[in-house]
Amino acid sequence: MLFGKLGCVLLRRTCPYRGIVTIYRCHSQKSLKKLRICEALSQKETGEYVRIQGWIRSVRSQKELLFLHVNDGSSLESLQVVASSELDNRHLTFGCAVDISGNIVKSPHKKQNVELQANQIQVVGECNPVDFPFKVKERHGLEYVRQFPHLRCRTNTFASLLRIRSEATAAIQAYFKENHFVQIHTPVISSNDCEGAGELFQVESAGRDRSTDGESSGFFSVPAYLTVSGQLHLEVMAGAFPRVYTFGPTFRAENSQSRRHLAEFYMVEAELSFTDSLEDLLVVMENLFKSTTDCILSRCADDIALFHKYVAPGHKERLDLMVKNRFKVITYTEAIDVLNRSSEKFEFSTEWGCDLQTEHEKYLVKHCGNVPLFVINYPYDLKPFYARDNEDQPHTAAAVDLLVPGVGELCGGTLREERLELLHARLERMGLEDAYQWYLELRQFGSVPHGGFGMGFERYLQCVLGVENIKDVIPFPRFSHSCLL
Amino acid sequence: MLFGKLGCVLLRRTCPYRGIVTIYRCHSQKSLKKLRICEALSQKETGEYVRIQGWIRSVRSQKELLFLHVNDGSSLESLQVVASSELDNRHLTFGCAVDISGNIVKSPHKKQNVELQANQIQVVGECNPVDFPFKVKERHGLEYVRQFPHLRCRTNTFASLLRIRSEATAAIQAYFKENHFVQIHTPVISSNDCEGAGELFQVESAGRDRSTDGESSGFFSVPAYLTVSGQLHLEVMAGAFPRVYTFGPTFRAENSQSRRHLAEFYMVEAELSFTDSLEDLLVVMENLFKSTTDCILSRCADDIALFHKYVAPGHKERLDLMVKNRFKVITYTEAIDVLNRSSEKFEFSTEWGCDLQTEHEKYLVKHCGNVPLFVINYPYDLKPFYARDNEDQPHTAAAVDLLVPGVGELCGGTLREERLELLHARLERMGLEDAYQWYLELRQFGSVPHGGFGMGFERYLQCVLGVENIKDVIPFPRFSHSCLL
Repeated sequence: MLFGKLGCVLLRRTCPYRGIVTIYRCHSQKSLKKLRICEALSQKETGEYVRIQGWIRSVRSQKELLFLHVNDGSSLESLQVVASSELDNRHLTFGCAVDISGNIVKSPHKKQNVELQANQIQVVGECNPVDFPFKVKERHGLEYVRQFPHLRCRTNTFASLLRIRSEATAAIQAYFKENHFVQIHTPVISSNDCEGAGELFQVESAGRDRSTDGESSGFFSVPAYLTVSGQLHLEVMAGAFPRVYTFGPTFRAENSQSRRHLAEFYMVEAELSFTDSLEDLLVVMENLFKSTTDCILSRCADDIALFHKYVAPGHKERLDLMVKNRFKVITYTEAIDVLNRSSEKFEFSTEWGCDLQTEHEKYLVKHCGNVPLFVINYPYDLKPFYARDNEDQPHTAAAVDLLVPGVGELCGGTLREERLELLHARLERMGLEDAYQWYLELRQFGSVPHGGFGMGFERYLQCVLGVENIKDVIPFPRFSHSCLL
Repeated sequence: MLFGKLGCVLLRRTCPYRGIVTIYRCHSQKSLKKLRICEALSQKETGEYVRIQGWIRSVRSQKELLFLHVNDGSSLESLQVVASSELDNRHLTFGCAVDISGNIVKSPHKKQNVELQANQIQVVGECNPVDFPFKVKERHGLEYVRQFPHLRCRTNTFASLLRIRSEATAAIQAYFKENHFVQIHTPVISSNDCEGAGELFQVESAGRDRSTDGESSGFFSVPAYLTVSGQLHLEVMAGAFPRVYTFGPTFRAENSQSRRHLAEFYMVEAELSFTDSLEDLLVVMENLFKSTTDCILSRCADDIALFHKYVAPGHKERLDLMVKNRFKVITYTEAIDVLNRSSEKFEFSTEWGCDLQTEHEKYLVKHCGNVPLFVINYPYDLKPFYARDNEDQPHTAAAVDLLVPGVGELCGGTLREERLELLHARLERMGLEDAYQWYLELRQFGSVPHGGFGMGFERYLQCVLGVENIKDVIPFPRFSHSCLL
């Protein structure tokens, strides 16, 4: 017993296996070359004696041979391990953790280039297959898997999602870095409500700080909320850096059960200074989408293929359309015209001045050939106080939404009103002048024309992978009445 | 007037300047090659006609010539702009935003290689120097600057900090990516209190969701808190990926005014599976520190030099000591021994079993030559329920703190108790068995020996830059009774 402390070590004492004779070696596992499964799978040289670690995805015991598939999260593909059936033991079950050493050999099977011919198999952590909620070789529905937030990373689909999510995060950061954006950590706890609209979560010191009259006391007596957007904080930074971005959690206390909304979600937000044209924002949005997607398509090909095969069949073609075509642009006024000329019956009004609803957005995207679509220049009165006045008739603001097939609104942005008098007048009309004194000051001291946008990161993942429910693209979903773990 | 819409454009109609004759060209600014200041400063070829944009850092008007320094946040160094004094105008003041075109020429001054010989100077956004809280060529104290969270990025020091922070973030992410860690977005809103100790912020739906009896209703009736650590969520993921990390905001509702604490701060946390030795964690901590520091030292040399010159003189040498030496390791028991053998008078007890206080940490670091110091194997009773029992005498847990000069505790980590029976027994003793049922299940289904650590990102920046107050290394500091913007 080499590793009695950790579990049972079984040594392979016989060697005849498929005609290959292995000399029995009693290696100290510690000194062995450790390979990740993805590294083992791509080995060109065979014969090397190595050590791998991971979790069992399947066990097949034949008369003389034992076949295992071992996965360590480094790739969707598992490594096939072949051993003498003498190495079998009752703890080798689906889901258990193993530490195995043996020789990398060429596989006789077409499905894989190499396999591991095991000499030692150690069960590091057992897994009772009766209690374990996932069953071997069963494709569990996403909804079923969602019930086990502490275990769902053990399924192929969710492990793929997590790899894609990690690579997409890196790709987004790489895009901004290459394009000279400074990353800003905008705060989660904030004293302002950017949109003036969204439902807010309030922050309360839970402990001693509560005041004695039973009323909750906020953030040490200061009213404070969870941020709904880092935009205003980015605008601060855009006064010293012409290109800034933030990528972090944002919050909406909407008490709704929806496939498109979460209480806590990730948002990518960017702000550009010295720009007086929406076009500049459109370029960044389109390039961000395409460069990120190109990147994950090349780095996570197998993982994305899994989604396009089992979760959203046919989505590969839809995604190809999005990546290969230039995004389209129409004005809000043109969009209203398109809707009114269509033969479709809409539930909501399509009168000029009404906000576009999901049904309208879907129709427009389809009408434009299922290519992502920028709708620009929305009615002035629909947009928040910071949106730049186009000073036109009918009255619009320099605002843009990016609509994508299946998901609807992926990004939203505006040029910001940089003209002190116009901004001041609007805030005054809304009675927000005092609250946004600091925001007005940004326009007093070296103001520049600027604009920015936000992209919902989970919606981006839904769009690329074809995942219907937003809860399936985030590690720990938080939504109305649910905050597991 | 070319850009009347945006401000005043002044065209240079005379050309004699330092012997160079420039032919007057009425360029459309839009079509001109735009250079960032850092790009303009590193131009090898001179004579090119370009456009730059930024904010004025100084104005010096002579009889015939006008000298400006323009900064756009792309570097600490500003670009010197020289123009005929005819281009001067009363709006050209410290802090105003400008859009300038002209020729890159070799500078006659030793201080810079090139300068811009301006043809057109447009003031995009004015800045009244009387109202603007920062004054030209004045070095404002960090405490003064802190009063203006919406403007402090306009100071050299804070702009440098933001560049360093952005690069350090990228460097940390690069380190983990190169070392095959999967990035996990752990949630901000959480239903568990990881440490069982820290003061928590509670989350309340602020709007309609409040129940009628005046009591606040939590996260849609569910009690929920702002996370104090992503560790437990990372441990979930460590059950499918042997290396995971998270980098995001964490929260402590400590009602204290301290130079080392914030209510909202950033934490880097990593978790490694298939590891049964603290040494593995120590290696990652040391490499993370050194690779990040190497990276920012090379990418932000000027910015860091600014800190080491003006903010913390002498800190460069202290940092060199940290980067060039191997970090040291002592056990808690040895540390207690060192403290008890010293001639220093300590305020707090140094008896075996007592926690190390700041005064002790400082002494230990100094004692070890001002090199970062790992203290390992703390008394079992001092550590949270998840710390792995070393089953020794005196009774210790496999825990580590990394202490660094000036800052004290930078990182903290433990091996996690992966043995179901031991974990179960401890949670039972603490009455936490039910709350952590899911955590116990992680040990039931393919458990592996694992461990991890967290590093305070702001403390890291304090340590590298020598910044005394943690409020000066984060864009928007949140602390007791203060939540500006």
